[in-house]
Amino acid sequence: MKAVRLTAIGSPLEEQEVPVPRPAPGEALVRVRAAGICHSDVHYRAGTSPVGPLPITPGHEVAGEVAALGAGAAGLREGDRVCLHYLATCGQCEYCLRGQEHFCRQGAMMGKHRDGGFAEYVLMPARSLVPLPEEIGFDAGAVMMCSSATSLHALRVGRLQAGETVAVFGAGGLGLSAVQLAGALGALDVYAIDIDGERLLLAQGYGATPVNALGGDPVQALRELTSGRGVDVALEVIGLPLTMRQAVRSLAPMGRAVLVGITDRPLELDSYRELIGREAAVMGSSDHLRSELDLLLEFARRGRLDLSAVITESVLLAAAPINQALDRLEQYGSGVRTVIHL
Amino acid sequence: MKAVRLTAIGSPLEEQEVPVPRPAPGEALVRVRAAGICHSDVHYRAGTSPVGPLPITPGHEVAGEVAALGAGAAGLREGDRVCLHYLATCGQCEYCLRGQEHFCRQGAMMGKHRDGGFAEYVLMPARSLVPLPEEIGFDAGAVMMCSSATSLHALRVGRLQAGETVAVFGAGGLGLSAVQLAGALGALDVYAIDIDGERLLLAQGYGATPVNALGGDPVQALRELTSGRGVDVALEVIGLPLTMRQAVRSLAPMGRAVLVGITDRPLELDSYRELIGREAAVMGSSDHLRSELDLLLEFARRGRLDLSAVITESVLLAAAPINQALDRLEQYGSGVRTVIHL
Amino acid sequence: MKAVRLTAIGSPLEEQEVPVPRPAPGEALVRVRAAGICHSDVHYRAGTSPVGPLPITPGHEVAGEVAALGAGAAGLREGDRVCLHYLATCGQCEYCLRGQEHFCRQGAMMGKHRDGGFAEYVLMPARSLVPLPEEIGFDAGAVMMCSSATSLHALRVGRLQAGETVAVFGAGGLGLSAVQLAGALGALDVYAIDIDGERLLLAQGYGATPVNALGGDPVQALRELTSGRGVDVALEVIGLPLTMRQAVRSLAPMGRAVLVGITDRPLELDSYRELIGREAAVMGSSDHLRSELDLLLEFARRGRLDLSAVITESVLLAAAPINQALDRLEQYGSGVRTVIHL
Amino acid sequence: MKAVRLTAIGSPLEEQEVPVPRPAPGEALVRVRAAGICHSDVHYRAGTSPVGPLPITPGHEVAGEVAALGAGAAGLREGDRVCLHYLATCGQCEYCLRGQEHFCRQGAMMGKHRDGGFAEYVLMPARSLVPLPEEIGFDAGAVMMCSSATSLHALRVGRLQAGETVAVFGAGGLGLSAVQLAGALGALDVYAIDIDGERLLLAQGYGATPVNALGGDPVQALRELTSGRGVDVALEVIGLPLTMRQAVRSLAPMGRAVLVGITDRPLELDSYRELIGREAAVMGSSDHLRSELDLLLEFARRGRLDLSAVITESVLLAAAPINQALDRLEQYGSGVRTVIHL
Repeated sequence: MKAVRLTAIGSPLEEQEVPVPRPAPGEALVRVRAAGICHSDVHYRAGTSPVGPLPITPGHEVAGEVAALGAGAAGLREGDRVCLHYLATCGQCEYCLRGQEHFCRQGAMMGKHRDGGFAEYVLMPARSLVPLPEEIGFDAGAVMMCSSATSLHALRVGRLQAGETVAVFGAGGLGLSAVQLAGALGALDVYAIDIDGERLLLAQGYGATPVNALGGDPVQALRELTSGRGVDVALEVIGLPLTMRQAVRSLAPMGRAVLVGITDRPLELDSYRELIGREAAVMGSSDHLRSELDLLLEFARRGRLDLSAVITESVLLAAAPINQALDRLEQYGSGVRTVIHL
Repeated sequence: MKAVRLTAIGSPLEEQEVPVPRPAPGEALVRVRAAGICHSDVHYRAGTSPVGPLPITPGHEVAGEVAALGAGAAGLREGDRVCLHYLATCGQCEYCLRGQEHFCRQGAMMGKHRDGGFAEYVLMPARSLVPLPEEIGFDAGAVMMCSSATSLHALRVGRLQAGETVAVFGAGGLGLSAVQLAGALGALDVYAIDIDGERLLLAQGYGATPVNALGGDPVQALRELTSGRGVDVALEVIGLPLTMRQAVRSLAPMGRAVLVGITDRPLELDSYRELIGREAAVMGSSDHLRSELDLLLEFARRGRLDLSAVITESVLLAAAPINQALDRLEQYGSGVRTVIHL
Repeated sequence: MKAVRLTAIGSPLEEQEVPVPRPAPGEALVRVRAAGICHSDVHYRAGTSPVGPLPITPGHEVAGEVAALGAGAAGLREGDRVCLHYLATCGQCEYCLRGQEHFCRQGAMMGKHRDGGFAEYVLMPARSLVPLPEEIGFDAGAVMMCSSATSLHALRVGRLQAGETVAVFGAGGLGLSAVQLAGALGALDVYAIDIDGERLLLAQGYGATPVNALGGDPVQALRELTSGRGVDVALEVIGLPLTMRQAVRSLAPMGRAVLVGITDRPLELDSYRELIGREAAVMGSSDHLRSELDLLLEFARRGRLDLSAVITESVLLAAAPINQALDRLEQYGSGVRTVIHL
Repeated sequence: MKAVRLTAIGSPLEEQEVPVPRPAPGEALVRVRAAGICHSDVHYRAGTSPVGPLPITPGHEVAGEVAALGAGAAGLREGDRVCLHYLATCGQCEYCLRGQEHFCRQGAMMGKHRDGGFAEYVLMPARSLVPLPEEIGFDAGAVMMCSSATSLHALRVGRLQAGETVAVFGAGGLGLSAVQLAGALGALDVYAIDIDGERLLLAQGYGATPVNALGGDPVQALRELTSGRGVDVALEVIGLPLTMRQAVRSLAPMGRAVLVGITDRPLELDSYRELIGREAAVMGSSDHLRSELDLLLEFARRGRLDLSAVITESVLLAAAPINQALDRLEQYGSGVRTVIHL
């Protein structure tokens, strides 16, 4: 089968012909119909995020059809429309047994630690397959498996309750999902903070009150919008110490700031004023859970989560267009969402 | 290998020679060192609880040593001391993925739906194996996998919080574990209700305040012992409509009665006085979870859960003594705890 | 001032001239602008529910304007639009201190244990006053303080999570609020069960899927509508053992049936099949909490809770029309909602 | 009556004769029998923590007997042994109504914002009085109202569950209570970290595993003691950025670090490695709740919380010995606990 693979760090992906894998017991082979190109893939190619061993097929945002099933792959049939939870887990360790498999002691991420979806077929444990309702296209199904799922998980980590208010720092791929999902979970008011007016317009279209950080301190703006109280949950999906701290500073008493964006620069906090005095929390959120994906797709099926404004380009499974899409992402950031169609 | 099996409903178990099973990928073969004889086994033999298909090897309370491992059985080695979570689950359905595998769509119980531990070896999914610390004997490890685990789960279903009070209706195998586990979970006061003075003495030795229901209405007694307030959590492990209702009637405002004991006779409640007016709950608890077993064994390792007064007899793996142990259970009830030693 | 009062059990209410009460420290005097006539008032008049001591002014659904404030009534000013939490509480007992003041050791209900709102003025502790936003009329504000608040509390007692499904047994005043509030709390699907087609149409208009119990077993219908799974939360707001049991029988694994409706006939359950085997719960819900009312009004302010189809009639503060409204309620049930306008 | 008061910032406390206050409705007058001298009092005297308006009577750790009751002070009688929740709250704001009165919009702290217990009598709202069981001395009752209560609250903020592990950074007054309370709440292992060997011995006597930070990196030590896993809850009660960060770094996946100690120096974190990658949280905890104090005293009554090794000195109600005790605290830190006896 055809696969577009990373063969050397820092070099363009290459097209290779590799054997179609065969499902062992408990595994499933999926014919790829759509694979999202994610900003993480840029990091893998550039070597700024660990990946391998090489050569490896990237692609961790995948939807397709079941092509073959190993023994014991219950509840699935060939031809089923599915999308893929990107973490292959052992199913046996203390974390898997509790449904917290993002800490699986043997977890391997598709497209990063094992071959992913920039190929005609991909092999995963059967339990990673999520039924994809007819109402959702393969491209949306693929892309949801990364940023949308991570947003939903982060809101759950932040223990968002219906009737609370939410601020989302960053209105890119993750943030636009977060805005919609916060509403679906019953948030009364959702604020989107960004410096890009176009993204803020999108966020507004999805129900958020936009706050342009170019126009002044967003913490001040959020205080005014909430009659001085602050927000109950603040999500940071950008990965900047500045916005992380703004997220913390915008909290109401007993509020929770959830960090999703990644940086290696230090985060500095005023522990008394920003945490203790308000009994606030800063919590990290990492990935998402297989058990969260059914609800995610159900929200999408009902139109409460809509990625149509986010997915803007599609390419074929070939090295040149994929590398070009990665180049664009590298230059212009996460606003550009390209999906490989097969 | 030798196995003592149920070949016909209503007939004594029979000794048979059967092949030693071989572990498929993800499975483990365990050499049985101890297998508890449970009151449920009486029901299987008598046909009062469904079992099968026949012939089948009973035994769902099992501890032993890993004898062989299929491919992909991570984190285990041959010779490891283990005890067995008795439910073989698919690991793929919505319930398994959430760590609520007691509702697994394909769950099969060892010793009831598939061959169990009245044999030299037993085969189970690797994820059913629980490491058994050196400090805990095989017999205690085996017996804990049923009644103690079910007690712990029931207390968790009842959302017991440290600082609350608990009443346990029934001081048999389940109840004596429940009394100890309630204490380990931080219950301030634990009351044990029974009509058997000897059992009540055992419960008292494990830290409970005994309430002999022969001496009068136990609900009245519990009200007096709690200054009229009632208890926060009441566990019913007997299976009688009378004691179920007493459990409900003994609750404090916002209390929770957890039903574990089984009966087919109807439960009658005064919905206003017993539930609405006190905002109380009656909840069913069923089985237990694999993820709860590590904590259970940790409690046992530290001596907070001690079954030495509960396990009183042992027999060899042979049809005659096992059938006799079942006969005794049938006649005298769950106070008699016999373990098969191999 | 004028008050329409219950002077003798079983007799019509009578108009009396009584002194305007004066607020002590921590109290507030409210000029009544709207007072709902509730089905409970029928019971008080008829003597089927305890009330008193007599004479007493009924009326526990009240909205109006602050007329005078005792010392220490913080955060309020004369003229403020308010509605009233109907429970006067001590603020000092263990329950009040935890925000569970529905179990206050000294709790006295306005219109039942102390004078209520069928009068020109009513006196309550300042902490019972809830700011009423401009966007909500006095009549809606009044009625929400009873049935809507009780519905919201019941959904919270049932621990409804966003993404779950809800069945509401009874599409009268309580049920039509419950349907809307379940949606506001993020319920994916809400089913309304009744035998009155007109009410079911109203429920449908508020977003519920109607199930007419005249057309066959509603439990069967709910199973079909949920692909056999059942619902996560079932509310019974009618007060019939039959529908209570249907609520329990319609539950999914780990589902919760919340009883709100009152009856003195026994509730019979199959403890194994209906509770234990599904690990389901039946819980009572009683009244509501002061701290829940701000969110309730916020939902109303945003139009997520709309009582315009429920409040259908208004009368003046006079004995004859109020008694006639009580007569109609006595005959035709809770579908008829009358508000006294002042 | 006699009172020892702060009349000028930076000056010694002075003895004054002031009128005995009279309880208004809802208030209670308490004859002081014991008043703890807290490290915060040093800050008030020195002006490093805001206090006032002056002159003011310090003393926020108070136990005594009810001397007089205002109208409406339910559930109390003259002569009752009580200790005092140090926050006088409005009982009407959104936070009070939810039982989160530590954020009361009008909260005034006894001994800091209003007259406290360095006097023969103290006046507080009746709801601030907590019944003090016979088994607990006035001195222990007084001291518990500050450090022990704050420890219990912090463990609850950290959502400590029975079966989890806890690390307490700082084995002074707060820490020694935290160690004991963690055990009472069902913590399996409690680690105490300090650089003072004597305090560590005390902590060990109360059930903790001591970790002397002078002997090397305590994070490393905690990792080794927990087989690499880390702890579920880490409490920082010292107020140093170094130990705050150590608390965060010692967490297990999904662990929670709770900050109690106060500093104005910035806290620096590695957001990815320390929070996101482990899905850990840093949360602030502030004060405690009235509703937590009954459980606290119940733990003390049963001997699960014992302050006998913490309270080491007593003085009479006079300016000189109190100033001397403050001097010692200023010099030697929180290990010295002095109580004023009356």
